[in-house]
Amino acid sequence: MARSTVLVTGMSGLIGGALRSHLAARYELRALNRRPVEGVPCHQADVADLEAIQPAFKGVDAVVHLAASVGMSAPFDEILRANVVGTYNVLEASRRAGVRRVVYASSGATVSGYERDMPYRALAEGRYDAAPAWTPLTHETPVRPAGLYGVSKVWGEALARHYADAHGLSVICVRIGHVTAEDRPRSPRDFSVWCSQRDIVRMIELCLAAPDTLRFDVFFAVSNNTWGYRDLDHARQVLGFQPLDAAETYR
Amino acid sequence: MARSTVLVTGMSGLIGGALRSHLAARYELRALNRRPVEGVPCHQADVADLEAIQPAFKGVDAVVHLAASVGMSAPFDEILRANVVGTYNVLEASRRAGVRRVVYASSGATVSGYERDMPYRALAEGRYDAAPAWTPLTHETPVRPAGLYGVSKVWGEALARHYADAHGLSVICVRIGHVTAEDRPRSPRDFSVWCSQRDIVRMIELCLAAPDTLRFDVFFAVSNNTWGYRDLDHARQVLGFQPLDAAETYR
Repeated sequence: MARSTVLVTGMSGLIGGALRSHLAARYELRALNRRPVEGVPCHQADVADLEAIQPAFKGVDAVVHLAASVGMSAPFDEILRANVVGTYNVLEASRRAGVRRVVYASSGATVSGYERDMPYRALAEGRYDAAPAWTPLTHETPVRPAGLYGVSKVWGEALARHYADAHGLSVICVRIGHVTAEDRPRSPRDFSVWCSQRDIVRMIELCLAAPDTLRFDVFFAVSNNTWGYRDLDHARQVLGFQPLDAAETYR
Repeated sequence: MARSTVLVTGMSGLIGGALRSHLAARYELRALNRRPVEGVPCHQADVADLEAIQPAFKGVDAVVHLAASVGMSAPFDEILRANVVGTYNVLEASRRAGVRRVVYASSGATVSGYERDMPYRALAEGRYDAAPAWTPLTHETPVRPAGLYGVSKVWGEALARHYADAHGLSVICVRIGHVTAEDRPRSPRDFSVWCSQRDIVRMIELCLAAPDTLRFDVFFAVSNNTWGYRDLDHARQVLGFQPLDAAETYR
């Protein structure tokens, strides 16, 4: 039986690299990337150019859309091009090509504006005595984006909902926490929002493997952090996601 | 005492016209409009051009941002230019000019995707026997945008939240229902989502007059419709909004 073909945008990034090593044995991987990616079929193009990226989607079963401008201080023009237009183009190209599912790399930045207020501020600052009890934010909590980056991820999720409703495209949004190159927490805030490389990779794999009937959903992805404030119950219930790592291990 | 200066974008539209007649006696009105608007100081420019619109914001106390591409079938490029970039530009120009408050014309289209499913579908289709009971959607219900237009309004609300948090700009989002030129319902759906001209005008005036401490909020604006599904309690509690009209009057 033929393995599913999965197109990964932004494979040259940190999560893209981790995903590649993990999925290579189970999926037929392809890359859509601005820079060349060695060792997998790579279509070199910019997600901001719909016509240029369209050929990469031919014969693809699922897309993992990681490509984005990730800087919290990126200028508006870059966010607009890479994230706002880029995500529209990836969903539109997926629709045109008859792709079955898109896994969209959203971000905890859709809600991390809550870290401006207590008790989430205390958690993000590592002042745990100031945060004796807190309610986790769920995927249904009103968004509160941090930065234009966070705003652009809210846009992507809304677009995903529209494509699922209007075009039947299955789009699963993963609000990824802080994945680090060292693969360990590196700031006080990371003890709340860190996500290990293997945890994000397993989450994305669960999204790829979820039944076709899952048309649209939103999940947080962080490790099992003692001081986390992002709900993981929903991902556990729907996808069976159980993080293997925890930031607290590194204290 | 000097009256407040209010800049209205898109004054040549239906709501802009109604707003103008109502506010002219109480506010010093100005227009930012692509087409000329007679009888008020009008800065002619396109909201898609930040540098071109900036002069219109000088000395302005509050902005009512109505300008938008409103077509449910408008192409992506138009939505991107007029709504996505346009709303960023209006908020950014407001921030630079030290504007106190922006009232953002959001839309019920941020949630009208729920009309795809029961019981909201029955309400929107006028099949009232099929909808014996329903829970109103509130400003905290997860968005479910209809069309790229609805997606662009979710973007605007997220951007508003970011500007309120990061820059202290007060932005109030009004999810406007269906305002008609005839000023009465004209389809079965309107018996659920119609908003009379005087109801939307009063809502916007309440948003302009709300205390400075109201930094960010989201309200639905529809008339007091028997078959409505959009919560009005929040607007009543926070702003004292009481619709004067009701679609049912026209049955």
